[in-house]
Amino acid sequence: MSGSPKFTLRWGILATGGIAEAFAKDLLVDPTTRDTHDVAHKIVAVGSSSSADKSKEFIAKVGADSSVIACGSYDELVNLKEVDIIYIATPHSHHYENGLLALEAGKHVLCEKAFTVNARQAAHLAKVAQAKKLFLMEAVWTRFFPISKEIQRLIHEEKVLGEIHRVFADLSMVFKRDPNSRLYSPDLAGGALLDLGIYPFTWAFMTLHDHPDNQKTKPSVTASILKSQLTPVDETTSVTLTFPKIHATAHLTCSMTSKTTKPYCVTIQGEKGDLQVAPAPYRPEQFVLSLHDQEPKTFDFKIPGQGLFWEADECARQIRDGKLQSERFSLQDSITFMEVLDEVRQQGGLTYSEKTEGVRADA
Amino acid sequence: MSGSPKFTLRWGILATGGIAEAFAKDLLVDPTTRDTHDVAHKIVAVGSSSSADKSKEFIAKVGADSSVIACGSYDELVNLKEVDIIYIATPHSHHYENGLLALEAGKHVLCEKAFTVNARQAAHLAKVAQAKKLFLMEAVWTRFFPISKEIQRLIHEEKVLGEIHRVFADLSMVFKRDPNSRLYSPDLAGGALLDLGIYPFTWAFMTLHDHPDNQKTKPSVTASILKSQLTPVDETTSVTLTFPKIHATAHLTCSMTSKTTKPYCVTIQGEKGDLQVAPAPYRPEQFVLSLHDQEPKTFDFKIPGQGLFWEADECARQIRDGKLQSERFSLQDSITFMEVLDEVRQQGGLTYSEKTEGVRADA
Repeated sequence: MSGSPKFTLRWGILATGGIAEAFAKDLLVDPTTRDTHDVAHKIVAVGSSSSADKSKEFIAKVGADSSVIACGSYDELVNLKEVDIIYIATPHSHHYENGLLALEAGKHVLCEKAFTVNARQAAHLAKVAQAKKLFLMEAVWTRFFPISKEIQRLIHEEKVLGEIHRVFADLSMVFKRDPNSRLYSPDLAGGALLDLGIYPFTWAFMTLHDHPDNQKTKPSVTASILKSQLTPVDETTSVTLTFPKIHATAHLTCSMTSKTTKPYCVTIQGEKGDLQVAPAPYRPEQFVLSLHDQEPKTFDFKIPGQGLFWEADECARQIRDGKLQSERFSLQDSITFMEVLDEVRQQGGLTYSEKTEGVRADA
Repeated sequence: MSGSPKFTLRWGILATGGIAEAFAKDLLVDPTTRDTHDVAHKIVAVGSSSSADKSKEFIAKVGADSSVIACGSYDELVNLKEVDIIYIATPHSHHYENGLLALEAGKHVLCEKAFTVNARQAAHLAKVAQAKKLFLMEAVWTRFFPISKEIQRLIHEEKVLGEIHRVFADLSMVFKRDPNSRLYSPDLAGGALLDLGIYPFTWAFMTLHDHPDNQKTKPSVTASILKSQLTPVDETTSVTLTFPKIHATAHLTCSMTSKTTKPYCVTIQGEKGDLQVAPAPYRPEQFVLSLHDQEPKTFDFKIPGQGLFWEADECARQIRDGKLQSERFSLQDSITFMEVLDEVRQQGGLTYSEKTEGVRADA
């Protein structure tokens, strides 16, 4: 009987696909196993766009309590008074509309990445959340891992690499070349960039954009896109971001036709040596610090589950404290991030339909 | 007493710096140690632009015969009747003028890389060599290594990787930030690209430009240059080459502020797996073939010396056979290569002085 009562955040899960399943399972993991004692989570409802039965199946599959409410529509879900926060797990082509739906119903929101299809949509979501005094965050889970925080501490506070010169990051996975799949669909904002590229970009943002001396200055962008021969989405994309304030560059690649090579997927190079992260870049468990003329040192950070719970903990703490956004990845960070992705697509000649790219008249 | 008499090529070494020394030492290696039995080399003269004494010192230092002629000027060297071919080992800012000098004196030429400062200079050298019926080749030594030929055979003939999707190549070395050094001098065509970048580009050319299905089609270029804060040369450069005919991309980087990371400097990715080359990219001795779902296989190719003798052997064979260029890297290949580097510099806003970039009126 010590301390104040634990704050428990009550979640509504919007959509029932793979990422929703992984997130829900992580919400059910006892927070103390990750040394989290101040906040807790409760799944109170799940919503499917097609039927309540699908939600029921989902609840059973993830092993949630049978008291969890199964909704047959997103409307029903976002209007439940029992729900504090909506976790949006639809394809990114739908995040903007789903986000508006939840915010307009007065719910806090954690929205999967890519946050939206473009920066205009991101800015509108942020504007609505601020106006309604609701918490809103992009679900950049990788940022909230202890390993990511430790890497940022080492390079930004301890400055173990000295001046940082270059960052390389790649996320590539071989997908079946199927014109009917989500990833090849221009209407669902398919392509490598918004699905895979966001991770290499996240590393560039964590290391260079967030560098204290960069003062959150937006980088300049040089981008090259190789479109698929099946549909007009990007199959292989390559980007250089230049951060003039810190005289550093990021070299980012993603592809749907190759696999990220081993042993490293992220390399941060500074005047004193390199820090290299082992795959996968979205869920790193190991990095190696190789300072010039020293033996490389390996650091391991095992993840007690999938690792999506740390971003959930962040939401709980911010909402408990009455904050509307996370300092670790603010709404302005999300908007800047989307502006950079917009610039990449613009240079590569990649646009989606107006239906997918559009914003509401009041945006 | 079997076969025809061995063909011996008589060399004049123009310049006495580090690369000239390495090349001259390699010319003195017994060709049979690399299983070369049809051609041989003889250093007959060395030329310094400053004094014959410097040439004498060079001759002693590399361990050449004391009968080698020591010239106190390049003019003297290129006009010696005993010389068949001039090896040009000056900084690349001087290759064009040195090349014209040697060709106009009626000598074959092997010219160090970067071949020239720009494509106009390269095209003029090629034109003069063809008109005078003299052999001319850019000294892209890496192309003539047995390991490079084996990699090309594996990916282009055996097609061990299937369709090739992406190539990554980097060459980066930490140089002292010294505004008075050659590498930081815009007048000497300094910067990372022409000194280091040519190796990653060579790998892109060997793997993608030379791909049989590419039919020597010039790639499109997307380039980003981060200039030094000391002098207006490129310190970190990043380029994507796109080869639409084979739907493949090359991601090339070079820098004077970071080191190429281990364990691999070149990665060739195809539908069936990866082929990765261990550093250095200019003098590779090992590659690893990692096919999907198979144990990686390592291939070692020890080099019996520095490895510059293989390009010398190529010169000897072509000249013996009356050829004016090498099929392995033709003059058109060198021109295309320089056109691509020109495009990189143009996109990155990197030009040198007119004195350095210029061509003669008759070009």
